[in-house]
Amino acid sequence: MTKGNPVKLIDGSGNLLEGYIVDPDLSGCVIAITETLRNFEKRNYRLHIAISPLKNQDRFEWFVEKSVEIGIDEITPVICRNTEKPGIKKERINNIIISAMKQSLKAFRPVLNEPIAFNDFTVAGLTEVKMIAHCNPGYARTKIDNIYQPKMDAIMLIGPEGDFSEEEISLALKNGFKSVHLGNSRLRAETAGIAACHSVYFINQNP
Amino acid sequence: MTKGNPVKLIDGSGNLLEGYIVDPDLSGCVIAITETLRNFEKRNYRLHIAISPLKNQDRFEWFVEKSVEIGIDEITPVICRNTEKPGIKKERINNIIISAMKQSLKAFRPVLNEPIAFNDFTVAGLTEVKMIAHCNPGYARTKIDNIYQPKMDAIMLIGPEGDFSEEEISLALKNGFKSVHLGNSRLRAETAGIAACHSVYFINQNP
Repeated sequence: MTKGNPVKLIDGSGNLLEGYIVDPDLSGCVIAITETLRNFEKRNYRLHIAISPLKNQDRFEWFVEKSVEIGIDEITPVICRNTEKPGIKKERINNIIISAMKQSLKAFRPVLNEPIAFNDFTVAGLTEVKMIAHCNPGYARTKIDNIYQPKMDAIMLIGPEGDFSEEEISLALKNGFKSVHLGNSRLRAETAGIAACHSVYFINQNP
Repeated sequence: MTKGNPVKLIDGSGNLLEGYIVDPDLSGCVIAITETLRNFEKRNYRLHIAISPLKNQDRFEWFVEKSVEIGIDEITPVICRNTEKPGIKKERINNIIISAMKQSLKAFRPVLNEPIAFNDFTVAGLTEVKMIAHCNPGYARTKIDNIYQPKMDAIMLIGPEGDFSEEEISLALKNGFKSVHLGNSRLRAETAGIAACHSVYFINQNP
């Protein structure tokens, strides 16, 4: 890119700035702004996914990239009984968030929260539609769109490779989470995260 | 795993075999079959996604892995005007298909076709519901579930990084493809592939 080229800038707080390059100096590029669009891509729902860190960091990071592209507002790593490696690389993941945001031109920067223990997360006073996606046939599970309607704000819990424990599912249900399935396929944890994110996105799509 | 351990085997043609290890010899393990489930996971729809090879092979392969997990029957690499690197690593991708099948315990092995030119693919006499997902605002686009209903067999065209050309979209429409969108988010090509695959999966989910 050089002098005169048009550029689009996002600030992560809802603004899209359009302009052109006045001075292409790499150490201090100057851009003239010709237009500012406020709240240019405001979704009509909020989605918060709380998901266990995974054994393979790449898979967790891939979940982050794809969910940011599709649309997500908040990601919370939750440490579950079957979580094998509780750590996440926060700085690296924040860079992935920014890069995916830029690539998919998202107005708002999704928030990556600090990891939290499952029990602490589920008892917190959350007011959104709360869902827990799991594979335990001992609990009735319903399709997401029986619980979630367009424009609702939602929280979705996604477990680790070995799924949630029975105690965790019981605790979540006691605290107002609804038990949902993601269809009949046996999905990897990160794929379940994307399937959940895309389900909410799909339900909110205009005809 | 050792002698006596239970195992599940799939043959890629619809059968799930359950049994246990009789002789754990790595060069010729012997398994006693106790049960054979035929057509154990027969989906009630067929999905064929025709997608451009991508600049970054990893991203294409990631699409393959995830679509196999979620559910797909046929993948055709289509060479479009904006396809930058037409090659795919067929053997490597077939290994990814088998690995994802095993991981998600799929009954049927998805087929990876030879790459084909866009024009040849779209004029072939295909009888399924045919859709082309693109981002060109010059053509009316509708949400997938306005075109696709549960249990239908479907073909979905997904373009390369620079989208389909106008000529390609026109040709597809002339040959019976319906123009669909995947929501408002600007998705990478491989994410669009997964979003399309998951949309069809979601529409077919039981309540």
